[in-house]
Amino acid sequence: MLIAKKYEQEIEVKGHLIDSMILTRIFDKVMDLKGDFQVLEFTVGKRKKESSYARLLLMGKNQQHLYELLESAYREGAQPITIQQVMIEPEVKDMIMPDNFYSTTNNPTQIYYNNSWIDVENIMMDKCIVLNTEKKTAKCNMIRDIKKGDLIVVGERGVRVIPQERPREGIDIFQFMSSTSSSERPTLQIARKVANDIYNTTVTSGKIIVVSGPVLVHSGASASLAKLVQMKYVHGLLAGNALAVHDIENALMGTSLGMHVDDGTLAIRGHRNHMQAINEVFKAGSLKAMVQKGILRSGVMYECIINHVPFVLAGSIRDDGPIPDVITEIVEAQRKYKHLLKDAKMVLMLSTMLHSIAVGNMLPASVKVIAVDISQPVVTKLLDRGTSQAIGVVTDIGTFLPMVVQCLEQIESISRKKTQTTL
Amino acid sequence: MLIAKKYEQEIEVKGHLIDSMILTRIFDKVMDLKGDFQVLEFTVGKRKKESSYARLLLMGKNQQHLYELLESAYREGAQPITIQQVMIEPEVKDMIMPDNFYSTTNNPTQIYYNNSWIDVENIMMDKCIVLNTEKKTAKCNMIRDIKKGDLIVVGERGVRVIPQERPREGIDIFQFMSSTSSSERPTLQIARKVANDIYNTTVTSGKIIVVSGPVLVHSGASASLAKLVQMKYVHGLLAGNALAVHDIENALMGTSLGMHVDDGTLAIRGHRNHMQAINEVFKAGSLKAMVQKGILRSGVMYECIINHVPFVLAGSIRDDGPIPDVITEIVEAQRKYKHLLKDAKMVLMLSTMLHSIAVGNMLPASVKVIAVDISQPVVTKLLDRGTSQAIGVVTDIGTFLPMVVQCLEQIESISRKKTQTTL
Amino acid sequence: MLIAKKYEQEIEVKGHLIDSMILTRIFDKVMDLKGDFQVLEFTVGKRKKESSYARLLLMGKNQQHLYELLESAYREGAQPITIQQVMIEPEVKDMIMPDNFYSTTNNPTQIYYNNSWIDVENIMMDKCIVLNTEKKTAKCNMIRDIKKGDLIVVGERGVRVIPQERPREGIDIFQFMSSTSSSERPTLQIARKVANDIYNTTVTSGKIIVVSGPVLVHSGASASLAKLVQMKYVHGLLAGNALAVHDIENALMGTSLGMHVDDGTLAIRGHRNHMQAINEVFKAGSLKAMVQKGILRSGVMYECIINHVPFVLAGSIRDDGPIPDVITEIVEAQRKYKHLLKDAKMVLMLSTMLHSIAVGNMLPASVKVIAVDISQPVVTKLLDRGTSQAIGVVTDIGTFLPMVVQCLEQIESISRKKTQTTL
Amino acid sequence: MLIAKKYEQEIEVKGHLIDSMILTRIFDKVMDLKGDFQVLEFTVGKRKKESSYARLLLMGKNQQHLYELLESAYREGAQPITIQQVMIEPEVKDMIMPDNFYSTTNNPTQIYYNNSWIDVENIMMDKCIVLNTEKKTAKCNMIRDIKKGDLIVVGERGVRVIPQERPREGIDIFQFMSSTSSSERPTLQIARKVANDIYNTTVTSGKIIVVSGPVLVHSGASASLAKLVQMKYVHGLLAGNALAVHDIENALMGTSLGMHVDDGTLAIRGHRNHMQAINEVFKAGSLKAMVQKGILRSGVMYECIINHVPFVLAGSIRDDGPIPDVITEIVEAQRKYKHLLKDAKMVLMLSTMLHSIAVGNMLPASVKVIAVDISQPVVTKLLDRGTSQAIGVVTDIGTFLPMVVQCLEQIESISRKKTQTTL
Repeated sequence: MLIAKKYEQEIEVKGHLIDSMILTRIFDKVMDLKGDFQVLEFTVGKRKKESSYARLLLMGKNQQHLYELLESAYREGAQPITIQQVMIEPEVKDMIMPDNFYSTTNNPTQIYYNNSWIDVENIMMDKCIVLNTEKKTAKCNMIRDIKKGDLIVVGERGVRVIPQERPREGIDIFQFMSSTSSSERPTLQIARKVANDIYNTTVTSGKIIVVSGPVLVHSGASASLAKLVQMKYVHGLLAGNALAVHDIENALMGTSLGMHVDDGTLAIRGHRNHMQAINEVFKAGSLKAMVQKGILRSGVMYECIINHVPFVLAGSIRDDGPIPDVITEIVEAQRKYKHLLKDAKMVLMLSTMLHSIAVGNMLPASVKVIAVDISQPVVTKLLDRGTSQAIGVVTDIGTFLPMVVQCLEQIESISRKKTQTTL
Repeated sequence: MLIAKKYEQEIEVKGHLIDSMILTRIFDKVMDLKGDFQVLEFTVGKRKKESSYARLLLMGKNQQHLYELLESAYREGAQPITIQQVMIEPEVKDMIMPDNFYSTTNNPTQIYYNNSWIDVENIMMDKCIVLNTEKKTAKCNMIRDIKKGDLIVVGERGVRVIPQERPREGIDIFQFMSSTSSSERPTLQIARKVANDIYNTTVTSGKIIVVSGPVLVHSGASASLAKLVQMKYVHGLLAGNALAVHDIENALMGTSLGMHVDDGTLAIRGHRNHMQAINEVFKAGSLKAMVQKGILRSGVMYECIINHVPFVLAGSIRDDGPIPDVITEIVEAQRKYKHLLKDAKMVLMLSTMLHSIAVGNMLPASVKVIAVDISQPVVTKLLDRGTSQAIGVVTDIGTFLPMVVQCLEQIESISRKKTQTTL
Repeated sequence: MLIAKKYEQEIEVKGHLIDSMILTRIFDKVMDLKGDFQVLEFTVGKRKKESSYARLLLMGKNQQHLYELLESAYREGAQPITIQQVMIEPEVKDMIMPDNFYSTTNNPTQIYYNNSWIDVENIMMDKCIVLNTEKKTAKCNMIRDIKKGDLIVVGERGVRVIPQERPREGIDIFQFMSSTSSSERPTLQIARKVANDIYNTTVTSGKIIVVSGPVLVHSGASASLAKLVQMKYVHGLLAGNALAVHDIENALMGTSLGMHVDDGTLAIRGHRNHMQAINEVFKAGSLKAMVQKGILRSGVMYECIINHVPFVLAGSIRDDGPIPDVITEIVEAQRKYKHLLKDAKMVLMLSTMLHSIAVGNMLPASVKVIAVDISQPVVTKLLDRGTSQAIGVVTDIGTFLPMVVQCLEQIESISRKKTQTTL
Repeated sequence: MLIAKKYEQEIEVKGHLIDSMILTRIFDKVMDLKGDFQVLEFTVGKRKKESSYARLLLMGKNQQHLYELLESAYREGAQPITIQQVMIEPEVKDMIMPDNFYSTTNNPTQIYYNNSWIDVENIMMDKCIVLNTEKKTAKCNMIRDIKKGDLIVVGERGVRVIPQERPREGIDIFQFMSSTSSSERPTLQIARKVANDIYNTTVTSGKIIVVSGPVLVHSGASASLAKLVQMKYVHGLLAGNALAVHDIENALMGTSLGMHVDDGTLAIRGHRNHMQAINEVFKAGSLKAMVQKGILRSGVMYECIINHVPFVLAGSIRDDGPIPDVITEIVEAQRKYKHLLKDAKMVLMLSTMLHSIAVGNMLPASVKVIAVDISQPVVTKLLDRGTSQAIGVVTDIGTFLPMVVQCLEQIESISRKKTQTTL
C-alpha cells in the first residue's frame, strides 16, 4: 500500500478543458494505458469564455508505468505541479540524436530553462529540439541538420505543449471537415468560403503557399492557378518536376502529355510533346531564361517568374528529365521547402499526395490547410497529419479552382465598389 | 481425318470488319475456345467508306465444340452461308423460359422467320425474344413478363445480330471514354461538349432521360437540374425516394439531411427535417398535390410537375418513408422505368449507381450514355454495361452540372443571335 | 435584464461526462447555436469508475432559442431538473405524423408517462414514438406503420435519451475504427479479432446477422460464408436478388455472371448462365423447392435452407428476374428485415452498400457492426450511421472472409482441446 | 489530281495483323488524322498460326499531313516499301536533344544503318536513341545521360518498331486485366496464378524485381515479403526510405508508425518509434552495418542483406531522415533503379504509386508486370504505362501477399514430391 504511493504524481492543466476536449484526451490516454487517476480539484469556467482548471493525481503500477502516464498527459498540455528544468544532452556526432531524445508534436512548444520558458522555433512534428544556451533560444531540427555539439532536449521534463483550442470563430467552415463524407457537400459554397479565406488572409498580409501536382494541368485548372498568382494571392509555390513540365508543354504546344488541354483530344505526334518541352528547358538553361528569351509566355511558371513569386521544384524518382530548375537532391529540396513555408498562414494543397504529405510534415498545427483532391482516401490521409485547422475538399480540381477564382473576382469587385462608395 | 470434316461450317460476315474490330473479335473468340479456322475469302474495302467481306471456315473438335464456335461468331455479327429459320418453342407456363432460350445482346437483332428478317423490338441485354407469328413481330421480354403460350426463340439459328460500328463522327468526344483515367481530363471542356450534345439532341427532337441520385441535392447541383428541366432539356426523370425527399426538404426548409444547402452548415433541429419533409408529402397525399396546394414551389420535382416532365421514383430497401409517389413494387417500377426509356436518344446518369445500373440493363447499345460520378470505379462499372456510345466523367457533380447549364445558356444565347441575324 | 431571465432553464446530466464526451458535446451544441451557459455545479467522479454530475444553466436569446438549446442538450442525455410528463397527440390519419413529432435517435430512449419511465422498444434513428397508454409500453415506429388513433410523442418534454458510453473493455478492437485510413492496418490481425468476436458472441447465445452483396460470389468468398452458416455462426441473412442468383449460378454451373469462380476465366456461353440460373428457380418455384428436389446442393442459400437459417431477400430496381423468393414490395421487405434484426447482437456487413445502409437505419446504437468493403468511402459512409460499436475494415472480402473462417476453425480446435483436457 | 498524287506513299506490314489488332490500329490512326487509304494487297494467314501481309497506300492532304500519317503507321509496326537509312544528328551539348529527335516507344525497336538492322538496347518509353557507328550498336538514353557528340536518331525514317503480339499461351491470366473492375475477381485464384508465374519465372532463371511501398509493413505483409526473399524469389528490391524505416521500426520495436503490427493497437510512446528507428540506422551508419553488428535481425531489409539481394532506396521529398542508405540524388537513384531492372523478366509492384510509375517508365513492353493495390484508380494508372503483359490486382496487400507465399510453399512441396517420386 505504502509502496504503491510511490508511483503517483500530481499534475495540473488549464484552459478550455472540456470544450476543447483536453481533459477528455488526458483521461482517455490514462485509461488506455490501464493507469488510474483521481480528480483532486476541478474548477469549471462558469461561462463559456472562462477557462477551467484541474488538478489530477496519476497513479501507475510502477515507475516506468507512471512515467508513461505522465508523458501522455504532458503531450496533451498537462504540467507537473512543480516545474523542472528541461534536460539536455550534447550530441557527439553529426546527424545522430541521443537515445532518449524528446520527439516533438506540431503544437506550440516551450522548454523551461534557466527559470524561464523558451519558445521552440519552427515547430514540426516528429523532430527533436536543439537548445542554444547562450542566446536562450530553441529550435526544432531535422535529424540531418543535427551537428556535433548540439544541445538536444531529452526526456519529457520541462517541456510544455500548448494544445490547439477548437476555433469558435468561423466555426462553420471547419464543420466541413468534421464529416469525412465531404464529397456530399455543396461544392459551390465551399469554393466561396475558400475564396473568402484566401482574400481575408491576403488582406491581413498573411502568406499563402500553394502545393500543386500536374493533374492541375490535365484537368484544365492551371490557367486558374496562373490567374491566382497574377492576382497576388499566391506567395510561394511548392511542386515537382511534373507540374512545371506539363505547364511548359501546355504553354508551348497547348497539350499536356499530348492531350490538347482546350478540348481533351489527343494531339498528332503528341507523345513527343512532353519530351520536347523538357528539351526546350534544357536548351534555354532554366525556366527563368525561357521567360527572358521570350520563349515561355504564359502559364503557372511564367506568372510566378514575372510576379516574383518564389517556387521550389523538388525532384522525385519518377521524373522525366528532370528539368534544370528541379532540385534533385531531396534533403536540399526539403530545406528549401521548409524555408519557403516559414511563417505561412495558409497552405492550399492541390491534387498532389507526395508533395502535400511532405509539406504537412513541415507545418505547425496553427497553419490553415485546405486539401483538395478527387479521392477521399487521399484527402483523409492528408488531414491525418494533424493540423487543427485543416479542411478537406473532395472535388474535381478542374472545376473547383476556376470557381474559387471566379468568387475572388466577385469579392474584389464588391470590395472596390465599397471603397469607391466610401470615397 | 474424314470424320474431322464433319465438325466444320462456313460462315460469312460483312461490314467495316477491320476498323470496327468485328473480325478481330471473331478470331479472338474462336482462338479462346481453342477452335480452328481458315480464311476462305477476304475482300477488304479499298477505301475507308467501303465495307469488307469475309468467308471463314470454322473447325471444331466435335459437334458441341463447333456449335460453341458458331454461336460465338454469330453473336459478333457473323452469319451462316445459308440462312435457316429461327427455332421457337411455345412456353407452357407463366414466367418461365425454355431451357435452350436465346439470350439477347443489347445490339440491334433480327430473327429470320417465314422467309424474312423481323426486327426485335425493345432490345435489351440478357433477356429472351418472343415471336408473334400472326403480326410477324418480335420483342425482347423480361422473364416476369413471359406468359403461357408465348413463342420463345431457342438456340442461335436464324438470329442475326448487327454489331455497332465505331462512330467516326464526333470521334473526339468518345475518346474521353477510351482512357479510364478520366479524372485527369479537362473538365470544363467536357462540360462544354456534354452541353453541345444535350443541345443538339434536343434540337433534333431526341428524347433525353436523366437518372439522378440524392447526392445532387447535397452537392448543391439540384438547382442546376431544376434549371435543365425548366429549359426543356429533360424529357423524363428516373430516380428513387431519396432524390425526391432531399429535394422536398431543400425546397421547404433549405436543407438536405439537415445541412443547409446554401452554405453547408448544419441546421438547428436539422435531424428532423428529413422526416418532416416525408411527413409533408404524406399529408398532401402526393408531390403533385403539394404543388397544387402551393406547398411545394421550387426544386427538381416541382419543375418536373410544372413542366409536365414524367418521372418514375423506384423504391428501395433503404428508403425513409417512402413517400406516396414512390413505386414500392420493384417489378412494377422496372416496367415504368422501361416505358419511360422507350426511344430515348440520350441518358444522363448523375451520381447514382443503383438506378444507373438498372437503366443500363434496359438500354439498347445505340443510346448515348453520359455517366457522371466522383468515384472512378463506379463510372467504370456503369460503362461496363456495354453501350458503345457511353462517356464516363469522373468529376464532382456539384461543380460539373452548374457548368453544363452555364454552357447551355451560352449556346442558346449564340443561337438566338444567329437567328436574329438571319432574320 | 429581468426579462432576459425568462429565457433560462436549469438542466442536469449524469454519467461518465468527461470520458464519454457527453459534456463536451452539450457545450459544443450550445455554443454552435450561439447560446450561453453557466456551470452551476460539477462533481467529477474521483476515480475512473465513478460517474460525474453536472448542473447547468442554459440561456437563450428568446423562447424559441432556449427551446433549441434545451432540445440539443436533451438529445445528448441531459434532463430538466424537474421531470415533466411526455406530450402525446393522437394521430387522425394513417401514415401521417403530427407536425411536432419527436424524431428519435438510435440510443436507448425512455419516456416519462404517468410517473414512471417507459422504455421505447425497437429504437431506430429518425422515427417516431407511439405510446400505448393501457399497456404502458412505447415503441418506435416507421411512418408507414402509423395507424389512425396512434398516440404519438410530440416535442422534447419527458423524453430521456441514454447516450452510449465509450466501451473500455476490448478497447483495442475499437481503435481500429478511430482512424479512417484503415486500409493501412494489419488485416490478418483484424481477421483474428473479428473471428474472436464472432465466436464469443455465439458462445454467449448472441444473435449474428450477415448482410451480404453479390461481390461475395465473384470474389470467391461465398464458400466461406456458406461455411460460416454451416458452422452455426450466422443466425440470419439479409441480402438481395443478386447474391442469391449469383450463388445459384455458382452452385449449378460454377460461374458468377459467366466467370468461372474457381479460376477467374470466362465460361463458354457464360452470358446465359445468369439468366439460366434465374430460370431454374422459376422452374422449381422457390429456392427451398430447388433444395428439396435435389437441384440445389451447395452454396450460401443451400446452407441457409439446410441449417434453418432464416433469410430475407429484398428486391431492387436493378434485379434480373427477380427470383420468386425475393420480396419485391420494399415496404414489406423493410418490415421483414427489421423483424429478422430484432435482438441482434452483431451485424456483419459484407460488401453491399444498399442493404447495409438499410440495415444501419434499423439498428439501435448498441449493436456491434463490422462493415467490410474494399472502398474506403463506402466504409466511412456505413460507419456514419452512428452505431457506437462499429468497426470499418477496408479490405478485399475475397481474402478477408476465408481468413476469418480459418481463424474460427483454429479457435474451435483450441477450445475443443481445452474441453478435452478438462475432462 | 496529279498534284494530289504527290502526297501518297506505299507501306507494308506483316504479322498477326488482325488478331493482334495491328491493322485495326493503323486504320484507326489514319482515320483519326482524317487521312485516306487504300488496301492494295491483303493476304490473310489462312490458319491461325500463319501471319498476314498487307500493302497499303496512305494519302495525305499535304506533305506534312502525309508525314504524320506515315509516322503513325510506322509506330504501329508498318514499314515503307523501300527501306531508308536512319537519320542521325550529332549533339553539340550535354543533356540536350536535337529538335527533331525520335521519341521511343517501349516496344522492341531497330534502326537501319549501313545496310543492316541494329537492335536498340535498353528500350524505354519517351527517350531518344543514340547510335554508335563504330560498334554498330544503338541504345536508348535518358536526356540527362546525353553527352556532347552523341549521334542521336532524328525523324522516323529507318526506325522499325516490332509491336507486341497478343499472347495466346496462358491467355486466361491476362484476361484478368481486360476488365478494369478487377476488384470483383476471385482473389484466391489470382494469388495462385501469380504464385505459379513467380515459380515458373524463377525456375527458368528469370529475374524478378519487387517494387514495394511502406503499406506493406502497416498491413502486416512485410513478413511475407521477407519470406519471399528468403525463398529466393526476389532478385532485386526497389523502394524508398519509408519501406526501410517502417521495416526497421517493426524489426526493432514491433511497430509501424507506432502501431503494433501484430495486433494493430497503438504503442505507448509509439510516436517516437519511427524517429528512433531512423536514429538507430544513423548510429550504425548503414543497414548493412546494423546487420553486421547484430542490431537488425529480421525483416525485409535484413533478409535482402543476408541473402545478397540487391536493393535501391530512392529518396523523396516526404522522407523522414532519410536514412544513410537512401540515395538522395534522384537522377542517381534513377540510374541505379534502371541498372537493377536490366534483364528483369517480371516485376511485382506492391502498393506504391510513386516507385511503380518510376519503374513502369523504365521497362520495355515485354516485361511481365503484376501491380497490386487496394485502389482501382491507382492500378488503372499503373497499367496505363503500356506494358502488354501487365496484370492489375485490386486487393488488400495485407491478405494477398501471405496467400501468394502460401501457394508458393504448396507448389514447392508438390514439386519436391514429384522429384522424389522420379528418383
